[in-house]
Amino acid sequence: MKKLQIINGPNLNLLGKREPAVYGNTSFEGYLEVLRDKYPQCEIAYYQSNVEGELIDKIHEVGFSFDGIILNAGAYTHTSIALYDAIKAIETPVVEVHISNVHARETFRHTSVISAACRGVILGFGLNSYELAIIGLIN
Amino acid sequence: MKKLQIINGPNLNLLGKREPAVYGNTSFEGYLEVLRDKYPQCEIAYYQSNVEGELIDKIHEVGFSFDGIILNAGAYTHTSIALYDAIKAIETPVVEVHISNVHARETFRHTSVISAACRGVILGFGLNSYELAIIGLIN
Amino acid sequence: MKKLQIINGPNLNLLGKREPAVYGNTSFEGYLEVLRDKYPQCEIAYYQSNVEGELIDKIHEVGFSFDGIILNAGAYTHTSIALYDAIKAIETPVVEVHISNVHARETFRHTSVISAACRGVILGFGLNSYELAIIGLIN
Amino acid sequence: MKKLQIINGPNLNLLGKREPAVYGNTSFEGYLEVLRDKYPQCEIAYYQSNVEGELIDKIHEVGFSFDGIILNAGAYTHTSIALYDAIKAIETPVVEVHISNVHARETFRHTSVISAACRGVILGFGLNSYELAIIGLIN
Amino acid sequence: MKKLQIINGPNLNLLGKREPAVYGNTSFEGYLEVLRDKYPQCEIAYYQSNVEGELIDKIHEVGFSFDGIILNAGAYTHTSIALYDAIKAIETPVVEVHISNVHARETFRHTSVISAACRGVILGFGLNSYELAIIGLIN
Amino acid sequence: MKKLQIINGPNLNLLGKREPAVYGNTSFEGYLEVLRDKYPQCEIAYYQSNVEGELIDKIHEVGFSFDGIILNAGAYTHTSIALYDAIKAIETPVVEVHISNVHARETFRHTSVISAACRGVILGFGLNSYELAIIGLIN
Amino acid sequence: MKKLQIINGPNLNLLGKREPAVYGNTSFEGYLEVLRDKYPQCEIAYYQSNVEGELIDKIHEVGFSFDGIILNAGAYTHTSIALYDAIKAIETPVVEVHISNVHARETFRHTSVISAACRGVILGFGLNSYELAIIGLIN
Amino acid sequence: MKKLQIINGPNLNLLGKREPAVYGNTSFEGYLEVLRDKYPQCEIAYYQSNVEGELIDKIHEVGFSFDGIILNAGAYTHTSIALYDAIKAIETPVVEVHISNVHARETFRHTSVISAACRGVILGFGLNSYELAIIGLIN
Amino acid sequence: MKKLQIINGPNLNLLGKREPAVYGNTSFEGYLEVLRDKYPQCEIAYYQSNVEGELIDKIHEVGFSFDGIILNAGAYTHTSIALYDAIKAIETPVVEVHISNVHARETFRHTSVISAACRGVILGFGLNSYELAIIGLIN
Amino acid sequence: MKKLQIINGPNLNLLGKREPAVYGNTSFEGYLEVLRDKYPQCEIAYYQSNVEGELIDKIHEVGFSFDGIILNAGAYTHTSIALYDAIKAIETPVVEVHISNVHARETFRHTSVISAACRGVILGFGLNSYELAIIGLIN
Amino acid sequence: MKKLQIINGPNLNLLGKREPAVYGNTSFEGYLEVLRDKYPQCEIAYYQSNVEGELIDKIHEVGFSFDGIILNAGAYTHTSIALYDAIKAIETPVVEVHISNVHARETFRHTSVISAACRGVILGFGLNSYELAIIGLIN
Amino acid sequence: MKKLQIINGPNLNLLGKREPAVYGNTSFEGYLEVLRDKYPQCEIAYYQSNVEGELIDKIHEVGFSFDGIILNAGAYTHTSIALYDAIKAIETPVVEVHISNVHARETFRHTSVISAACRGVILGFGLNSYELAIIGLIN
Repeated sequence: MKKLQIINGPNLNLLGKREPAVYGNTSFEGYLEVLRDKYPQCEIAYYQSNVEGELIDKIHEVGFSFDGIILNAGAYTHTSIALYDAIKAIETPVVEVHISNVHARETFRHTSVISAACRGVILGFGLNSYELAIIGLIN
Repeated sequence: MKKLQIINGPNLNLLGKREPAVYGNTSFEGYLEVLRDKYPQCEIAYYQSNVEGELIDKIHEVGFSFDGIILNAGAYTHTSIALYDAIKAIETPVVEVHISNVHARETFRHTSVISAACRGVILGFGLNSYELAIIGLIN
Repeated sequence: MKKLQIINGPNLNLLGKREPAVYGNTSFEGYLEVLRDKYPQCEIAYYQSNVEGELIDKIHEVGFSFDGIILNAGAYTHTSIALYDAIKAIETPVVEVHISNVHARETFRHTSVISAACRGVILGFGLNSYELAIIGLIN
Repeated sequence: MKKLQIINGPNLNLLGKREPAVYGNTSFEGYLEVLRDKYPQCEIAYYQSNVEGELIDKIHEVGFSFDGIILNAGAYTHTSIALYDAIKAIETPVVEVHISNVHARETFRHTSVISAACRGVILGFGLNSYELAIIGLIN
Repeated sequence: MKKLQIINGPNLNLLGKREPAVYGNTSFEGYLEVLRDKYPQCEIAYYQSNVEGELIDKIHEVGFSFDGIILNAGAYTHTSIALYDAIKAIETPVVEVHISNVHARETFRHTSVISAACRGVILGFGLNSYELAIIGLIN
Repeated sequence: MKKLQIINGPNLNLLGKREPAVYGNTSFEGYLEVLRDKYPQCEIAYYQSNVEGELIDKIHEVGFSFDGIILNAGAYTHTSIALYDAIKAIETPVVEVHISNVHARETFRHTSVISAACRGVILGFGLNSYELAIIGLIN
Repeated sequence: MKKLQIINGPNLNLLGKREPAVYGNTSFEGYLEVLRDKYPQCEIAYYQSNVEGELIDKIHEVGFSFDGIILNAGAYTHTSIALYDAIKAIETPVVEVHISNVHARETFRHTSVISAACRGVILGFGLNSYELAIIGLIN
Repeated sequence: MKKLQIINGPNLNLLGKREPAVYGNTSFEGYLEVLRDKYPQCEIAYYQSNVEGELIDKIHEVGFSFDGIILNAGAYTHTSIALYDAIKAIETPVVEVHISNVHARETFRHTSVISAACRGVILGFGLNSYELAIIGLIN
Repeated sequence: MKKLQIINGPNLNLLGKREPAVYGNTSFEGYLEVLRDKYPQCEIAYYQSNVEGELIDKIHEVGFSFDGIILNAGAYTHTSIALYDAIKAIETPVVEVHISNVHARETFRHTSVISAACRGVILGFGLNSYELAIIGLIN
Repeated sequence: MKKLQIINGPNLNLLGKREPAVYGNTSFEGYLEVLRDKYPQCEIAYYQSNVEGELIDKIHEVGFSFDGIILNAGAYTHTSIALYDAIKAIETPVVEVHISNVHARETFRHTSVISAACRGVILGFGLNSYELAIIGLIN
Repeated sequence: MKKLQIINGPNLNLLGKREPAVYGNTSFEGYLEVLRDKYPQCEIAYYQSNVEGELIDKIHEVGFSFDGIILNAGAYTHTSIALYDAIKAIETPVVEVHISNVHARETFRHTSVISAACRGVILGFGLNSYELAIIGLIN
Repeated sequence: MKKLQIINGPNLNLLGKREPAVYGNTSFEGYLEVLRDKYPQCEIAYYQSNVEGELIDKIHEVGFSFDGIILNAGAYTHTSIALYDAIKAIETPVVEVHISNVHARETFRHTSVISAACRGVILGFGLNSYELAIIGLIN
């Protein structure tokens, strides 16, 4: 049984509510159920916070005992050296994911200050980015 | 009855206490009473936090039901893409305000990463910047 | 009786003619009448020129006797140090206004070289930006 | 009968007088006669000014009724956002021309802030650049 | 039956030969057999070239008939606008992959000029990056 | 009889196939016939390659005997110092052309590293840019 | 009796747990006891948080009554203008400390946005940096 | 008899009126009389305009017949390539002067785009800068 | 017997033909004979291509068996990360040479992206740069 | 007995003479006596020079036998790679000190090119910065 | 009797020897005699050194007793913050001079790091720049 | 008999003492003897100084009579415009050498401000770089 932690950063709590034409009506919680059904060999914990420091707290909490972290740091991706340090400090491998192709959006989204600390990066596959990260971690 | 939310960011809780020669002895709470008296046709809620993520939480909370948000994001104005995303994600129009003329201060205060997501910007009128924002929103 | 001067810079003479779907059919002259009616306690003079130096001439002319200047410097906002110097040299307070939210447009419009010399800045409220500037000046 | 307007910017009034070894002894007025003879199907108006704002005035004046504008903005090419706005605001297509190959000269001449607003750009063909622009417009 | 094309760019022909301690002794051809066995529902074509223009030729060739392209453009990732244009010009979705975590290496590898044209990006999972791309494309 | 060489760079082989709504259904070969009919006094050779070095080979091949080269270097325009050197090394004058107005597109298309070596530049007139280049060369 | 406040920022809660070969097995709490024993003339309060805004709250709380603050802001050192403002707003002198020599590490650690607001800076002496700060404050 | 032309650019018409504590009560006209008395061997013409293009007109007018031009271009010093071109185009030597030491003021005043076209530069000697320029020209 | 490979990049095939006043009438082939006569203890292979990828192919081909490579990458020196990777991937030491002193020419020639992967660099000695590289490799 | 060397760079010989209101009337020699009295367990040598190369000479001289160097490199802090190399080349640990908080002064004082080679940095404590460095070295 | 010190920096000892076609055959010593004869009311001391620190020594030596310093810092003009500090530290006014118009030469000569500390700047008048500085100082 | 001058800049006096595992135990003086034995047809003078100005003095001293200068300017390579000027001012050709491959080290070592003034550059061949420079100069 693999223990995985999904961590979503700022504004990702609005999924399913914000711009349904773009993001659909499914909330992340709904998608999470699908994932848990499809990957019964994994225990998938979920956490969301808009507070940068609480994301760090969670990374510390699971970072010495879980088998993998899937992190969508939202906008903190582009600015948070503190998150970079947190990922560097722990032992659990972290996969950075993004729902959209951030390189096809505003210039400030093209730079990630956390990628260098992560095991790998997956982006642009919609919610499927999370699933690919799970497969990447359990292989 | 218009519902308006004033949100003040980091260090603005010290108004009235910090450098009274510059900022006067009135706390923001004192000023708020004046505003509420002067604009009885508005219900003016007030929130202050030094935590970036809590400002985002508040924007989410009121951003689909209130008629306007007046946001002085303090120093987060210059760095917080997460706030930019929060403003983009909601439906309520946001007016960015600053008490001082930030362009006449240090260079790092000349750049706002949230302006592009706001309806308008008002700065340099002292506490009156908030009142002008109210007028701009209720017109 | 407050004496106020509105100064419009380059291309603003085309208001009402250019892109009516966006800017409406009202010329600035039409809007000016509305303002004068609404603020009878102010004498509102109006001047428009596409010539940078003529804007400076006008600022000099009124800058030691009027109670306020409302300046939409158009594209000169982003390049004219000479206008900055003119505003610095006079005694009348100047409020910088823009009809659109310049921060949501091309990158070169995000920088104002005149803001630091102005009393305050108001932008993004459409033609109402001028009215808010009047209120800001007469308070 | 096509109505075309040639507009020359700063220092181009010195053509024929300045550095004749380089530019020849023909003034622009002389060249203009040749053009008018060769293209009798066009009515070719000509205007020159060293004042940025007067170039804008002329663009406004002809920009809703002429069939084409051929603009050599001289040094304002590299700095004038106000000209860019003027070209954007009108309906007549504008072709940017330069006599010399500006890219083979000083670095500051390699950047044009008006190209993005123009229909096309022609440069480096000597005075023939104007003729190619005429052909480009009447096709 | 899905038709997929894997395209490898410069220096990737040395896999298995170069630095075996790091990259192992398996050549890409060896890995390819594993992939084909594991994904029998896909027809996986393979192409490698060190010539930028030949990569473009191949993208054109398959870009209107295949179901997906998996592109590891090697060092051209960081410089080739021509590849970006090629990806933009075709109809088949392209997934950008990298074996290593390029963001943890030299600074010039942190920038990809092709990501914005791709459907998604997967990097840092070793050779498994290719497999994740296949899964991402066939879902 | 003037000998002219048209050279098209990367991705221009897709003209007529790619985005017909934008570029039309005419392939470059079709347009070439029109040009040859209209300018019988010119022998117009045509070459296209996606390989940077092959474009250089062709420039060398015709650069000491032809009367003019019309070069649309596509994306190599923005990056290829090698092409710049090739143009510098030969005797035949080269005219740089672009179908679209590159200055109205992505920022990375605003810089040409080959313009300084060319006789002139023509851009933004659609396929007519080629014809204007021919006229510019045979005058 | 001097009242001093030590404030540790993000990821410093992991001291003693993270990379013991580098940082040793002593937690900061252990080191704190040593300090308190050695400096009985000081009352040394301690606070740690990963949340930027809570660090600001603490600075506000003690900044008008304590005799000195020793601040290791961790990664927020390099990005937090809000912390800079907090230090500027209070009366208690602040000494910035770092355990490692940040200038011998990644480039992004070479810039501190808070130094200008502090009384002094001490870095590179391991945990002894805190002790030197105490000595610097009580002299 | 040497013919010299003094040209003053934007905002210099306010000398003697603006900040008398700094600049004194003497207008430039008053200072001019002193100069004319002291240098009877020179015919000293004077011109001031706030319009960039009118400064160019004046440079053209005197630039082929006078013995020297003393140019204080004010804020246009830092932005006007058109002035640079005008100075390059004429035959009369031009000396650039500034009343204050521009290098001890705001950063944007440290760059002059016209110096390279001038014979020499004199700055920081108050109004005496003009006299030193006269001496420099008549020697 | 030392096996050495000389590789010349783009436009170097024109040596002896291009600007004979500068580069002389000797083709590189002629110079090669002189080298072979003077260094009989070396087997000196020669290759030239204008295609970046073919240069990489050749580096791969000889890079695990030859004793040294002398590489004049021409303009690719300044842009080709792919060449840098190729040099890094092989075992044979590579000496970068340039005929001219590239640092005394255009700014874009001052940067080499391949130097860091090479054993050494020799430039500015005309064709003798190649001979010095041979001596450097066989010592 | 610890052997320590204090080295002061350019303009620090003027301490006590320059701006006494700011720096006091004590020369560095006076302060040195206090230090020597207070730290009898240290032999404290002192050297000052305005010549960059002489500072390097001194660092070499003591850098293999002393127990510590306290270096205030003055303005050379911001520009001297040669000093950086000297510190790297020796065995004695070096502590960089500054009397003032350089980060609160001109921008060019915010960058130190020698910090990365030093053991630690102490700044902003007035002359006490030297004493803190001694304590840091003898612990 | 005014006491003036002329200080010449690096490479200025070669005047009269270097490129006589450009600089003439007069050494600076020869020119100095002319100056001393022409200004008998001044005692003009002269010093030259190629050593940055010795220039600082000289500035310190005369900087509290002389009436003026005329400083041609040569190439140190563009790099020496230590000279800037030396000029700031003394009481005697310093005039920066250059023989040539440095702004018409290489880009790195356009920036002076010492101008901001000087009273004024005079450049481009050949050796006469020194004389103009004397006049500027004794007025 | 050729007269050659080797000049070594800052920190090169430590060769043989510093990091013997890297640089060996041979001092530069020892290597010099080998060179003098191997090249009896040359008179090889040697000079080392850590003082930038003394390096300039030596360049001046030999720069009009020697046949060649071999200059390893150490860290001054990257900053000293004064050395660039010195090399430009003399007649003797100068070859810039470096022992290590500076392009494979810290970024600040990638830029040489003196290369453009030198005849050629040789780097990365260890002490043999000096010998190659001798061969390059005597051919």
